[in-house]
Amino acid sequence: MDNTTAIIGNIAAILTTISFLPQVIKTIKTKDTDSLSFPMYLMFVTGVTLWLIYGLLNNQMPIIVGNLVTLIFSGIILFLMIKQFFTKKFKRRFQ
Amino acid sequence: MDNTTAIIGNIAAILTTISFLPQVIKTIKTKDTDSLSFPMYLMFVTGVTLWLIYGLLNNQMPIIVGNLVTLIFSGIILFLMIKQFFTKKFKRRFQ
Repeated sequence: MDNTTAIIGNIAAILTTISFLPQVIKTIKTKDTDSLSFPMYLMFVTGVTLWLIYGLLNNQMPIIVGNLVTLIFSGIILFLMIKQFFTKKFKRRFQ
Repeated sequence: MDNTTAIIGNIAAILTTISFLPQVIKTIKTKDTDSLSFPMYLMFVTGVTLWLIYGLLNNQMPIIVGNLVTLIFSGIILFLMIKQFFTKKFKRRFQ
């Protein structure tokens, strides 16, 4: 693997890892999760958790760090979706 | 790497790859992209494209296939967001 390929891989890893941050910020600010897919975040968070376990079992630091960051971001989004769901349910009951 | 670790890695890869499909289906059905973050999908699609190039340069089939599928799914979502943006802009002009 030459230097250019390694640089491409690093940029790819950074972009896909931090990409969830703007979604976290937007969802915290707007509290709007209506167009987000719950099954997507459920599958994604489960998948990233398994990637983290895989990284820990193989002792591969880049997989551990990358997936830990992604897990935090996507986990926050999933948590906000669940919170929104119960907030709406509660409101509807008292309307 | 033992068998269990390989299985965990495979399930992780499948889950994170197909997780975007329910979001694609939801966005096509509802045409609602309001709570989706544009910078997220812009960064994510760029990152996955670079992962694909990285896989092609290293001739690593799992990276190529996984990222090609993810690129198609996330690319459709990004396309729908851009389409929604212009549809709204056009509507506003004629209101």
